[in-house]
Amino acid sequence: MPSNRQILLDNRPEGEAVAGNFKLVTTDTPALKEGEVLVRHHYLSLDPYMRGRMNESKSYAQPQPLGEVMIGGTVGEVVESKHPKFKTGDQVVGMGGWQEYSVVDGNAPGMLRKVDTTHVPLSYYLGAVGMPGVTAWYGLTQIIAPKEGETVVVSAASGAVGSAYAALAKARGCRVVGIAGGPEKCAYAVDELGFDACIDYRQHPDVKTMAKALKEACPNGIDGYFENVGGYILDAVLLRTNAFARVAVCGMIAGYDGAPLPLQNPALILVNRLKIEGFIVSEHMELCRRRCRNSARWSRRAS
Amino acid sequence: MPSNRQILLDNRPEGEAVAGNFKLVTTDTPALKEGEVLVRHHYLSLDPYMRGRMNESKSYAQPQPLGEVMIGGTVGEVVESKHPKFKTGDQVVGMGGWQEYSVVDGNAPGMLRKVDTTHVPLSYYLGAVGMPGVTAWYGLTQIIAPKEGETVVVSAASGAVGSAYAALAKARGCRVVGIAGGPEKCAYAVDELGFDACIDYRQHPDVKTMAKALKEACPNGIDGYFENVGGYILDAVLLRTNAFARVAVCGMIAGYDGAPLPLQNPALILVNRLKIEGFIVSEHMELCRRRCRNSARWSRRAS
Repeated sequence: MPSNRQILLDNRPEGEAVAGNFKLVTTDTPALKEGEVLVRHHYLSLDPYMRGRMNESKSYAQPQPLGEVMIGGTVGEVVESKHPKFKTGDQVVGMGGWQEYSVVDGNAPGMLRKVDTTHVPLSYYLGAVGMPGVTAWYGLTQIIAPKEGETVVVSAASGAVGSAYAALAKARGCRVVGIAGGPEKCAYAVDELGFDACIDYRQHPDVKTMAKALKEACPNGIDGYFENVGGYILDAVLLRTNAFARVAVCGMIAGYDGAPLPLQNPALILVNRLKIEGFIVSEHMELCRRRCRNSARWSRRAS
Repeated sequence: MPSNRQILLDNRPEGEAVAGNFKLVTTDTPALKEGEVLVRHHYLSLDPYMRGRMNESKSYAQPQPLGEVMIGGTVGEVVESKHPKFKTGDQVVGMGGWQEYSVVDGNAPGMLRKVDTTHVPLSYYLGAVGMPGVTAWYGLTQIIAPKEGETVVVSAASGAVGSAYAALAKARGCRVVGIAGGPEKCAYAVDELGFDACIDYRQHPDVKTMAKALKEACPNGIDGYFENVGGYILDAVLLRTNAFARVAVCGMIAGYDGAPLPLQNPALILVNRLKIEGFIVSEHMELCRRRCRNSARWSRRAS
């Protein structure tokens, strides 16, 4: 049985999470029972939602228990199997957590899924064709539903979700504008990911300057916005929305470490007849699996 | 030609509108030109949107021009006509404004509409089967779309929109909870309008006490909310929303007289996967005319 390095949540962060909130332990992987599968992880997806799980209070999901392996999406390879559906060498995606190996009940629905890596590299199943990709797909196509020629914006543009969003929105004939932190990320968004423009929020640290930058980057106004951050960036975007714009709320990272950040002018929801909708992608995976198989080829460069 | 008392907007209010913002003038109604109709108003609808029009800044509509008759929905009777479609004695609904008579171009689309008062009293065309009624219908059926047994809430519950909302929601098998100002309005909402409960916001003047009152009045949480007021009431309602609740934003009266009122915790949009949608009923009149003819019989007691 190989030894397994695991990262546990040791205590709950106040404000930003730091190394001292976690504990590294080394254990032996247990002998498999009938129906179980041992997976060696090749990649772990580190995602913003994890910060919410570290809090004590219940959000839309239960908090991460203390003293247990941190939750996280993983891709890897089956190294031992006592389940007829899985065999050694299978490439799989699952929620293996922050550890090198995981033991998975092969019968538990949705816990472990074989993936085909002949055309798509394994790591992409944590990116463009994984949870971030379907997140972008769901928000863009099911909430924003842009028409050709419309302008759509996304915050955290250079991340896994933002990059898939750009590819999907460009394929639909939209002008795509990103918001990211720092000149490197912005250059990467435009040069590599296909954004038409990308605004550096560090250069525009308040509502007024951000709204000005958005006006320049979105001369025809904003028809759709994919929200990952919240705070003053959301305030600025709403000021530039066209009538009947749609806002998909996927994350509000800016408030994850502390007190809630208010929305300064909710009356704009009425004035501009906005539709604002929050969603959690794990509740829509079935729809995504049925509908978004074509995402991969639009998103090659986005992973 | 009868003489016509008219109320003009004389100057723009700062804060609450007061009598000094208006001017009463008496003019003679002009001689009719070909195609015109002279209407004597029997009722004027005094609505919250008017406060927004009194401001200089453009909202979703142009501001009310100074020195002109204040805008407003009216019902009345044709007293003279030079249009073949209208004859003396016809009962009509239109946007006659704050005056006793209006001269209307009978050819202008949607400006004047004959109504049938054999089964529905004339005044109801400014209430349950008029703009407030279709407003309630649109928000409830097209945005909130409640299922039987769900709990739906409305602010400004004892007003024209709130009363129609109660009737429509009860007809759909919902628990209907109102929010209104003062014990008289709340008693009226429960005893006369059919609300299952009504919360007096004057007794619950902050988020915490309002959220507590909502918890008691909505033991199964809130599935739909029709927003007329904004401010801390909206904050409190969002705290009590169930997952996938819908919020129809029709008005934000609380902020009409001054600075915008922030929404304290927009992260709830994500946590509770809310859908929040603003709408202006005049943009949906065609749909309403096609779809909501049955509202009248559900709303008899609501006008």
